[in-house]
Amino acid sequence: MGSLSDIGLAAGINILSAIGFLLAFAILRIQPFNDRVYFPKWYLKGTRNSPRHSSNVVSKFVNLDCGTYLRFLNWMPAALKMPEPELIRHAGLDSAVYVRIYCLGLKLFVPIAMLGLSVLVPVNWTSETLEKTKALTFNDIDKLSISNVGKGSDRLWAHLTMAYAITFWTFYVLYREYKVVATMRLNFLALEERRPDQFTVMVRNVPPDPDESVSEHVQHFFSVNHRDYLSHQVVYNANKLANVVDKKKSLQNWLVYYENKHARNPEKRPTAKTGFWGLWGKRVDAIDYYKNEIEKLSIEEESERELIMNDQKAIMPVAFVSFKSRWGAAVCAQTQQSSNPTIWLTEWAPEPRDVYWPNLSIPFFELTIRRLIMAVALFFLTFFFMIPIAFVQSLANIEGIERVAPFLRPLIEKKVVKSFIQGFLPGIVLKIFLILLPTILMTMSKIEGHTSLSGLNRKSAAKYYLFLFVNVFLGSVITGTAFQQLDSFIHQSANTIPETIGESIPMKASFFITFIMVDGWAGIAAEILRLKPLIMFHIKNSFLVKTDQDREQAMDPGSLDFASSEPRIQLYFLLGLVYAAVTPILLPFILLFFGLSYLVFRHQIINVYNQQYESGAQFWPDVHRRIIIALIVSQILLMGLLSTKHAANSTPLILVLPVLTIWFHIFCKNRFEPAFVKFPLQDAVVKDTLERATEPNLDLRAYLKDAYIHPVFCCEAQSFASMEEDVEEKNLLVPTKRTSQRSSPSNSKHASELGTHS
Amino acid sequence: MGSLSDIGLAAGINILSAIGFLLAFAILRIQPFNDRVYFPKWYLKGTRNSPRHSSNVVSKFVNLDCGTYLRFLNWMPAALKMPEPELIRHAGLDSAVYVRIYCLGLKLFVPIAMLGLSVLVPVNWTSETLEKTKALTFNDIDKLSISNVGKGSDRLWAHLTMAYAITFWTFYVLYREYKVVATMRLNFLALEERRPDQFTVMVRNVPPDPDESVSEHVQHFFSVNHRDYLSHQVVYNANKLANVVDKKKSLQNWLVYYENKHARNPEKRPTAKTGFWGLWGKRVDAIDYYKNEIEKLSIEEESERELIMNDQKAIMPVAFVSFKSRWGAAVCAQTQQSSNPTIWLTEWAPEPRDVYWPNLSIPFFELTIRRLIMAVALFFLTFFFMIPIAFVQSLANIEGIERVAPFLRPLIEKKVVKSFIQGFLPGIVLKIFLILLPTILMTMSKIEGHTSLSGLNRKSAAKYYLFLFVNVFLGSVITGTAFQQLDSFIHQSANTIPETIGESIPMKASFFITFIMVDGWAGIAAEILRLKPLIMFHIKNSFLVKTDQDREQAMDPGSLDFASSEPRIQLYFLLGLVYAAVTPILLPFILLFFGLSYLVFRHQIINVYNQQYESGAQFWPDVHRRIIIALIVSQILLMGLLSTKHAANSTPLILVLPVLTIWFHIFCKNRFEPAFVKFPLQDAVVKDTLERATEPNLDLRAYLKDAYIHPVFCCEAQSFASMEEDVEEKNLLVPTKRTSQRSSPSNSKHASELGTHS
Repeated sequence: MGSLSDIGLAAGINILSAIGFLLAFAILRIQPFNDRVYFPKWYLKGTRNSPRHSSNVVSKFVNLDCGTYLRFLNWMPAALKMPEPELIRHAGLDSAVYVRIYCLGLKLFVPIAMLGLSVLVPVNWTSETLEKTKALTFNDIDKLSISNVGKGSDRLWAHLTMAYAITFWTFYVLYREYKVVATMRLNFLALEERRPDQFTVMVRNVPPDPDESVSEHVQHFFSVNHRDYLSHQVVYNANKLANVVDKKKSLQNWLVYYENKHARNPEKRPTAKTGFWGLWGKRVDAIDYYKNEIEKLSIEEESERELIMNDQKAIMPVAFVSFKSRWGAAVCAQTQQSSNPTIWLTEWAPEPRDVYWPNLSIPFFELTIRRLIMAVALFFLTFFFMIPIAFVQSLANIEGIERVAPFLRPLIEKKVVKSFIQGFLPGIVLKIFLILLPTILMTMSKIEGHTSLSGLNRKSAAKYYLFLFVNVFLGSVITGTAFQQLDSFIHQSANTIPETIGESIPMKASFFITFIMVDGWAGIAAEILRLKPLIMFHIKNSFLVKTDQDREQAMDPGSLDFASSEPRIQLYFLLGLVYAAVTPILLPFILLFFGLSYLVFRHQIINVYNQQYESGAQFWPDVHRRIIIALIVSQILLMGLLSTKHAANSTPLILVLPVLTIWFHIFCKNRFEPAFVKFPLQDAVVKDTLERATEPNLDLRAYLKDAYIHPVFCCEAQSFASMEEDVEEKNLLVPTKRTSQRSSPSNSKHASELGTHS
Repeated sequence: MGSLSDIGLAAGINILSAIGFLLAFAILRIQPFNDRVYFPKWYLKGTRNSPRHSSNVVSKFVNLDCGTYLRFLNWMPAALKMPEPELIRHAGLDSAVYVRIYCLGLKLFVPIAMLGLSVLVPVNWTSETLEKTKALTFNDIDKLSISNVGKGSDRLWAHLTMAYAITFWTFYVLYREYKVVATMRLNFLALEERRPDQFTVMVRNVPPDPDESVSEHVQHFFSVNHRDYLSHQVVYNANKLANVVDKKKSLQNWLVYYENKHARNPEKRPTAKTGFWGLWGKRVDAIDYYKNEIEKLSIEEESERELIMNDQKAIMPVAFVSFKSRWGAAVCAQTQQSSNPTIWLTEWAPEPRDVYWPNLSIPFFELTIRRLIMAVALFFLTFFFMIPIAFVQSLANIEGIERVAPFLRPLIEKKVVKSFIQGFLPGIVLKIFLILLPTILMTMSKIEGHTSLSGLNRKSAAKYYLFLFVNVFLGSVITGTAFQQLDSFIHQSANTIPETIGESIPMKASFFITFIMVDGWAGIAAEILRLKPLIMFHIKNSFLVKTDQDREQAMDPGSLDFASSEPRIQLYFLLGLVYAAVTPILLPFILLFFGLSYLVFRHQIINVYNQQYESGAQFWPDVHRRIIIALIVSQILLMGLLSTKHAANSTPLILVLPVLTIWFHIFCKNRFEPAFVKFPLQDAVVKDTLERATEPNLDLRAYLKDAYIHPVFCCEAQSFASMEEDVEEKNLLVPTKRTSQRSSPSNSKHASELGTHS
């Protein structure tokens, strides 16, 4: 491929398939039996009821109103209709700012695309260098790119001017956006209702004291050093208990399943096998068996609870310290407590839903070691990941399989199977790795010891961006594995690296156009269809649902996956900025991606996703920084490209741009980043004063009492927040309403026992 | 030069000249008439009196006690005798920690030198590669270095092991030292007496308010947001007034000079010319003239004072805000005040002596622009400084001078003069630039807008280190200007740069040995002789001194010049670490430098220097970081060197070292740096509580009243602290007692008018 008509054909196919997805979505979403898959957010909000209550039996399941089929695209304007302030109230600031990233893409690239298409494309097209030199292999895309401009041509000034225009436009857009987001965050924090994390600071590395328990030590230390100290909560190491609770929950799901089965067919008591996954073992009466097992686990759970609460060693050297005022908490979070900076480490407490409990007790020294090891591991993962993959691929060939499982030989030797294995297996191995990659990176971030889910997501995103940049962007531009690139970079001089990459940039334009269509467009269309949750919901609905409450639990609204989707957006920013001055014809494809994504994700956060936590757009500095990195990369590559065009006197002119960009970044960082890291005292005082005036009799101590209790003590439904993904594989009926704050009555006794020490 | 005997000869000559200096010092220092040059610190302390009170006229001036001549080296043990805690009390923590840098050099390099000389030197010496290959140009130093080891030889393992040993030993020494210095700092701060800066925070960028003055705005803001707010002092833009005061002081010096003249020769009234520098103009009676002029300036000064105090525009948007407790100040300094991070910027107030007043009013945006410009300027200064120098050198040749000043032709055409100009003038131009360099760098730091003298010194030191590293270290290793190096680096591949430099490292050993002797040893010996202050003191003493008080003012104790001397020490650390595994024979020369420096500077801070300010060793993180940089450079260069020796499989083994070093740096930074930046609340509470118990009736408001007043309002003697160096050129009798805190009665009226607003 490469000629304009080829690209057009590919675009047509991809557009058609995307439209197919969208059509499927448009039809599926108006079927009542899919309602909970496509509108779970509204169910959680309580503003939408199950359509099954309607009288007509058929219309409970299938939409018979033909009018709605004609208006099948009306979700698009609906997605745009909700104004931003309402969106923030509805879906949270994180989500609202997340869709702004796509919007930023549009704001950034629409003017650049218009300028590029109206100026650079004619300049490139009319140059005719490729035709003159009778280059053997060139295509229409190349004729539209800088490749068509001759060496040392004066036309290169157009590209240089374009680079300046792009840089300053990006500065303007980024600055404005940073300002808007910072203001949104500050307004959000200012208008926010009272929340426990506003009054609470997380203290890590409480030093051991021979005479006092952790709880006493914390209380004495903070009541001496902070006048506003109110109370604190210690943290119990409840990971084992959480496991027991988990197991019990899973067994309860099975019990429900068999009870349902029994209810449908009352004559026959269901039976089950006691062994692994019910595949073998003694056959027993299922309902009795599971009731019995649950009884046993309940006893075990009870004794584990007793153990934790009576064992001093179960208390971790961590505490959540609450203050009488937001001012007191802001002061404590921003100051150093002890002359030894490795103990009494204070930071803002993440909101209760956002705490990642297992990491709370890692000591300071271990933390630095863990980070060193993970940094080295990330380096090897990024540059050498092909080595284990290639090893597995070499095992997963015909001979390998025959050696391991000789009994499969007759099957494998068949020609169809053989060619399938030989053709697809290596690809599948790689694909499995790529699907697992975000999980691997998340695990690495967990090992690094971050204490909040939002922090884990941000760190994973940074790692994933590095991986995509090296292996997708550089890996596609300079073919060869990342390791080979690294090797060749080390052996190249500092000024030839940008030249090498810059030179091959225009040649890869048609590849990246295809990439944008296949990965970008199709990915977005698949996103809105929600195929996996659709199937999962119907499976659960058929087997596990007894009451409406069960059905609500069977919904899986999911949430925005910042860790893996933000780096992918950044890849498109990178492509857009790199190609803007080189092959501007690529920009419309990116614009379509951003536009479609904006629509789809706005729809998703309104109707589907239910965020697990609210960090108040704390990720924005990362987004900003990565766009700046993309801008600098684009400038350096353009410099390399122009120097191969013998426009050497342009080098100092372009060199100014990265310097300016770095300065712009430092300026923005100083200007806005504190709004994302610190909490200004003035705002704290304003909120405190207001609250004292409006609610003079507020009992803050009671309000904060159970805020930061390990989820297993607080309400069983919440315990899964800390377990995350792996839960989904284990259980069939997982309570997906992860955000509910209600505590089940059976556990409130423990909660109050474990409550505030003050 | 190059052979061992040549080096020995040069060492002998340099040692002899150093001994000459030391002998001259030993004799000069025991002469009573030099007492104030070599022991000013003790005079300032008030524990030493002028020896001129003795009865014998001759012994007032010349030491006639022969016994003291025999004990002429007894300053050396005396310098070592004072224990460290007493040294801190006597000279301040800054000085005490500064001499620890030399001590650190000894601790670091003594074991490394012993190991290197006992292991590597025999390994190198017995290799005999240079003899075998019949290399034409090699010398004894080369035979002792890694050059003598053949390519691919197994002996290179010894050097590799040595690199590991050096790295881990450096880690150990640096960690221990950082820990000791951090503890010293914390103890110092904890034991320190009450000082205004403990209670005070500097607020910059106070936003303008249409309804309130700066003073009211500050008061309202802080009394709302900080419960411990006590009072504040606004800052007046008194730069013009400071100039007037300055000029008056200079005229007063002249008046004293003429009055002295008149007193010695009462018959004749001294006369002076009114023109420029007294060279032309009307001849007038000097005493009357100067009295008259001083009168005029006094009136001008008075009206300027009135003007400043009545003009709202003279108040800068800066204030020193004081708190009721150290806790309150610590909280305010460490927190963000407003949601806009560019206004209400709070930081610890430098101690009053340490404030650099002219920079207080630079707004935030201008600051970032200034820093960008200075960063670019520093880059050009470092890499292209030879261009203007070469230009001036080309002007400063025979033809150039003849063109500018044809009347000098007969003189210049003489052969002696001609050869002198041709031979020395270019060198002198370069030398003048190098002498001016610290002043240029200090000016650049001032333009960057730092607000304390200690900060200015630290930033200048960083710039000077970069300059020395590029132009002295790299410039000597790879001959050629810095620009040529930069050019060749850009055109070399990343792995050949260390190879190129690494390869030429062993060849430059003998050059650097000479450098250490000439620059290091001789510089230290000249340091202790204090030739310039010696001459200046005797000039002032002859012409300007009437009373003992005048004589005290004529002393110039000076202070440690951190900005230019610390980077020079770092150069020796760099040389030591780079050559430790390559040519260990260089280490004894460095050891002698560190040992001698330690002795000399310990003597100087005990007897001579009087620090202008006390920052509490805040510079240590910089010192630590630069040694880490030197260590990493040494590792990378060794890697390059070994790869040219075809010990290629050693590369991954050495690559581990920089990674470990960077990790070690991050670890130390996290572990210790907060102690140098923040002030822990716990310590603040302890000090506050103690103070409340011991001094329950302390009137803090009165204590802090005049602490942060611009020196021209406070006491005229202090006004010169902000004028610094250039003062010395202008005036003959400058009050060098810069640290005195007493305010002259004539100004106390203004001081109280300008005092605390609370």
